[in-house]
Order: sequence, then C-alpha cells, then structure tokens
Amino acid sequence: MRTDQNKILCSYYNDPNPLVLESGQKINEHQIAYETYGKLDKNKSNTILICHALSGDQFVASKHPITGKGGWWNRMVGPEKPINTDRYFVVCANVLGGCMGSTGPSSINPENGKTFSLDFPVITIADIVNAQLRLIEHLGIDRILAVIGGSMGGMQVLEWAASYPKKLVSAIPVATSSRHTAQNIAFHELGRQAIMADPDWKGGNYSETGVSPTKGLSIARMTAHVTYLSEASLTKKFGRKLQDKKDLGFGFDADFQIESYLRHQGLTFVDRFDANSYLYITRAMDYFDLEITHKKNLTEIFKGTRNRFLVVSFTGDWLYPTSENLMIVRALSAAGADVSFVDIDSDKGHDAFLLEEPQFDKTLDGFLSSVYSSLG
Amino acid sequence: MRTDQNKILCSYYNDPNPLVLESGQKINEHQIAYETYGKLDKNKSNTILICHALSGDQFVASKHPITGKGGWWNRMVGPEKPINTDRYFVVCANVLGGCMGSTGPSSINPENGKTFSLDFPVITIADIVNAQLRLIEHLGIDRILAVIGGSMGGMQVLEWAASYPKKLVSAIPVATSSRHTAQNIAFHELGRQAIMADPDWKGGNYSETGVSPTKGLSIARMTAHVTYLSEASLTKKFGRKLQDKKDLGFGFDADFQIESYLRHQGLTFVDRFDANSYLYITRAMDYFDLEITHKKNLTEIFKGTRNRFLVVSFTGDWLYPTSENLMIVRALSAAGADVSFVDIDSDKGHDAFLLEEPQFDKTLDGFLSSVYSSLG
Repeated sequence: MRTDQNKILCSYYNDPNPLVLESGQKINEHQIAYETYGKLDKNKSNTILICHALSGDQFVASKHPITGKGGWWNRMVGPEKPINTDRYFVVCANVLGGCMGSTGPSSINPENGKTFSLDFPVITIADIVNAQLRLIEHLGIDRILAVIGGSMGGMQVLEWAASYPKKLVSAIPVATSSRHTAQNIAFHELGRQAIMADPDWKGGNYSETGVSPTKGLSIARMTAHVTYLSEASLTKKFGRKLQDKKDLGFGFDADFQIESYLRHQGLTFVDRFDANSYLYITRAMDYFDLEITHKKNLTEIFKGTRNRFLVVSFTGDWLYPTSENLMIVRALSAAGADVSFVDIDSDKGHDAFLLEEPQFDKTLDGFLSSVYSSLG
Repeated sequence: MRTDQNKILCSYYNDPNPLVLESGQKINEHQIAYETYGKLDKNKSNTILICHALSGDQFVASKHPITGKGGWWNRMVGPEKPINTDRYFVVCANVLGGCMGSTGPSSINPENGKTFSLDFPVITIADIVNAQLRLIEHLGIDRILAVIGGSMGGMQVLEWAASYPKKLVSAIPVATSSRHTAQNIAFHELGRQAIMADPDWKGGNYSETGVSPTKGLSIARMTAHVTYLSEASLTKKFGRKLQDKKDLGFGFDADFQIESYLRHQGLTFVDRFDANSYLYITRAMDYFDLEITHKKNLTEIFKGTRNRFLVVSFTGDWLYPTSENLMIVRALSAAGADVSFVDIDSDKGHDAFLLEEPQFDKTLDGFLSSVYSSLG
C-alpha cells in the first residue's frame, strides 16, 4: 500500500532488525521506500528488481512527487514495453543512504531524535543490496527473475549476483564496472569537494539551518552531468550555439547554450536531492570493488554460478567504457557462466542507457522473454 | 633587463599605446611580463616565440618566483635541448589577462588607482596575440622563426598564423583546436561556477578584502586537472591505491591516492594563480573560434600561406583529441600549406605535451632545425 510516511507517496518497508554494514557499523532500524508495478504471479516467479543509479530513485515509471515529471525509465517499464508490467512484477527501491524516503543522512536518528547528517554511517553497494534483500524477503519473494540496473545500478546487480546467486535467475548489469576506476573516483571527488566547500554545508549539519549547500551540490551535479554525455552528443546538441543572443556577450553570463543547459541541470537537481546523500552515495560507488569485498578475483567470485547474464555497454560511454564492461564479461566467461554481451553503437555517452536506444530495448526484451519462458 | 616591476623578477614591456580589443573595448596602456633565453642573432632571424597554456606563464625554463620550481618546459628549452637556446632566441610572455606581471584583472587600473577586477574587459586569444605582436616589434624582431604552443598556446599559434603570416616563418600548434568544443566549454564553465560560487569571490571584488576564493579556484583547478590526464595514466599512476592507509576509512577524508593528489593540485595552484585571471583566460579560450573571428572557413583563412606548419597531437588526449588537430591539418592541406602532422602515441592524456615524450622532442628538434637551415 502506498503511504506518505515521509511526505513522499510510495510504498514503505520498515525493517526493525539491525543491519550490519560492510564497515562493521550497524543501523538498528531502517526504512526502505519503494514502488512496484504489475502483479506478482501466483508462483512469485515474475519479479524484476530495478536498481537505480546515483541520481535516480524508486519512481522508475511513475510521476516524480517533487518534479512532477514522468519516471526516469518510463521508456522501458510499462505495459507492452521491454520490461512489460503486464507480465512482470517490477520492484524499484530508493537506495539506503538516499533521500527519497529510504533511511539516509537526512533521516531522523531514532536514538536521539536529530537528523543523522554525518553521523550516518558510510555505506557501500553491498549494504544497499543487503537492504534490498530484506525488502524482497518481506515481499515474500524467494527468487528474482531478473535484477537490472545501469551505472551504480549495475554495481548493485553485480553485487546481487556475487552474494546471492540463488536468489536470482538472471542478472543484467548495464554500462557499469566491477570496480570504480581512478578517473571515476576523481570526478566524484570534485563533486564532493564542491559540496563541502560550500559554507552552507556547515560541516554536514545544515538540516536545521534553513539553508543547504545548493551551490556546491549544483556544481557537483553539473560536473557529473558533463561526464554522462559524450563529446559527440554535446557537439550535436549544443556545439558552439549561443543562448538567446546573436553575438558573444563579452562577460561571464551564460553565452553558450551548453552553459545555460548545465546551469539548469545544476539548479533543478538541488530541488530533489540532498547534498549529504550525494556524498554518501558517491562514496559507496567509489568504494565499490567486487574483488576487495569478496576477497577473490572476479572469475572466482562467479565460479559455478547458475545465473544467466546479459552485459550491456555503449560505444560512446567514456565513463564506464566498453572495456570495463568487457572485463566483467571475460570474468563471467572464464567462470563458466551463461553470459550474453552486447556493445550498443551509440554516440549518446553514459546516459545512453536512459535514452532512446532501440537496440537496447530489443536486446532487453529478447533476453527477459527468454529467461521468462525458460521457467516453463 | 630583468626588473621586479610588479614584485615578479622578469623583463617587462610597458606599452603606452591603446590596444583595441576584439570586443571593441580598449585598454589604454598595458604591461607585458616576459622572459627571454639565448641571444638574438645579428639578422634577428632566430626567434622562437613560445605561447603558454591556461595555467602557464613566462617562466618556461627558469625558476618560478613563487613556487621555486623549475620552468614548466625545462625539458624542452635550454642548451642542446630541442628548443636549443645556444641557437635560438626564445621569448615567452605572460598572456594579457594573466597574473604573473602582465596586465590583467588583478592589475591596478591607472584611471582610478583601483584593482581592475571585473572592470577588466573580456579579452580573446586574438587580443593576447596582438599584445604579443607589440612586444615582438618592441624587441626589434620583424619575423619570428617559429611560434609554438600547446593547448591554449596552440590557439595563439593558430591566431598568429591566421592574422600575421608575414611575421612568421613557421607555426607549431600542439594538442589544440581551431575552436573550443561544447565539452571544452562545459568543463571550463564548471570551474568558473566553482569560483563564482565561493562567497570569498565577492562578485569579483576580493582584492581588497584580504581573502580570495581559494576554495572555488582550487576546485576549478582540480576539475581541469582531471581532464588533462587520460584514464590510462590515472589507472597506471593511482588505480585504486589508498593514501597512507591499509584499509578504507569509511569517511570523507581522502582515502584514495587520486583524491589526495587532486586536493594537492588544487591547494598549490591557488598560491600562484589569481581567480579572476582564471575566469578571463578560460573565457578567452571558450570564445576561441578562428572561423568566427576571421569570418572565413578554416581553409580560406590559410589560403596561400607561405608559413610551414607542424601540427602535433597525442593519441591519449581526450580534451583536444587527434580528430580536432586533424581538422586543422586538413584545412591547411586544402589551403595548399606546407604542413607536417605527427600523432604521437602516448597514454599520458592532454598533459603529454608537457611531459617526457621523446618522439615529440625528436619531431620538434627535426622540424626546427629544418626551418632554421632553410633560412640559409
């Protein structure tokens, strides 16, 4: 049942059991905000778990309660769409550490009635997945038909397949990596520094001040956004076109369309995202290294897995390039896993997985249908 | 003669004649700070003009007065080096708009005795080159043997060759572009936003406040620095190595070496660079579009040129990639120019032109020697 437990209308699961984190710290109780689409069948065998990316949320195919915009994967999820809600039961949860209703740094710490802020423990992708597992068990689902996600969502997919292979039939990591590279970490660090340099961040304790580090968060978002697009897509979309003017302004206002666009991206993001959540979630991504968490190499991690895998990358993605995705494919192959790999020709950059890419839709539809039918 | 006109020991040229800018505005008088190496020969035919990049300065092969470090191109400039100071007379000037002694936003406006700050007019690459031309004429040099520069230095080289071909024998644009792309503009805009978001920027009027937007400038530098390196070089140099610790810290201090490195890059930069200069110089780069300035296409601009060209790019440079440099080569070829092109195999990223790349040294040495001998 959808409630507005935290002013955000969606479903909630309140987990009263302590969650032990990868750091060794513990969250005594937590809440996960989620959305579902379609119906769970009588065998409880048609669940697709969608894991969202850094700036995503549970509103994968429903109206966003703050922006009023459609779901971030409307294109992919719905009746007759590749993730066909006439056939599948779709679950998407806001990640632990998030700011759309799941417990995170902007939540109230039940121990002292104050906002967690930086008292919230640093979490990892494994912690996010463990909280999702609790939700899935709470929903009475013993086995997920497919877990799918792009970017940070793909990291969660890999972690699911590494830790809970028996809970899955198939796994679809998209435009991701088995560990965050130095360049990935570097770009995140820029964003974090921008947030922490904003005096309104106040050492993380801005929640009761009536202000928040909107300038810093806006710059963090702008920085990330540039990395999501390819040079080709930027050139195609903006080039050197001027914004509402015929000539250069010879000043520091936005002259070029790309400047206005980025400023807009930054400004609109701060309305729907919490700056501390941004710190925590980027940290979780930077910490992600499947081999370190599992103390094995990638092939050993997946040795003997019965899961079917579909790995998808995009040629224009320079943030999580094809080579990173191929590392996963090679390890899975060496582990004897049933793995399909598609490198989709696209000039849209990392964001391609969210955008109109018919070949991706077709590939996903085909793979899911095949997995679904194989259940008999 | 080297003086310390502005507390920086180097040579100065004070130009009393108004400089009309591309914007139509005018600078009534200005000063250019420069360094020279080697001796001008009796025919005044052995001058090599080096144009520096965004964060460079005139100290191409001499100790930096603030950092105490060696010149930024020590490797390339000196006796027996590719730019052989036993043979050539080398000139390198701090760009107009800079902060190492040339007139810029941190200079005193002679009209009112106050720091220019944002009253300084927005300048362009053409304006920078026009000020250099005045310096060259002041030095009594009628024709430059070679003008060379990488990145923003390369833009100046192209502008020299486009506007003053008769003043040159040869031109060597390195790792550059004939116009700044949307992606280039985007990364600069991030840096500018970071500076302008810093409350210590104070709308540009920080010079008399005793503080300066060091946090914003530091983030701008960090952002730019990431773009100067390739993914391969970051992985090779840092990977996911931790900084002075065995395990993850589960906090927001620098855990990874790449984080410490970037923070260090940011912090040391603010000691030697002015935030407003950073705004003005990045703006000049973003405005750079040779075709717009010259109201002709690239081929027409260079039609009939007698200059010899050497264009150099680096395979690992994703900021000014080979494709951008090839656009210049194709236009020059179509214009009938004498052009050599070398795409140097390197995984060092954009910064490769500043780093140890023996093939670059050899190429440059060979080209310069050939141009020099052709003078007879």
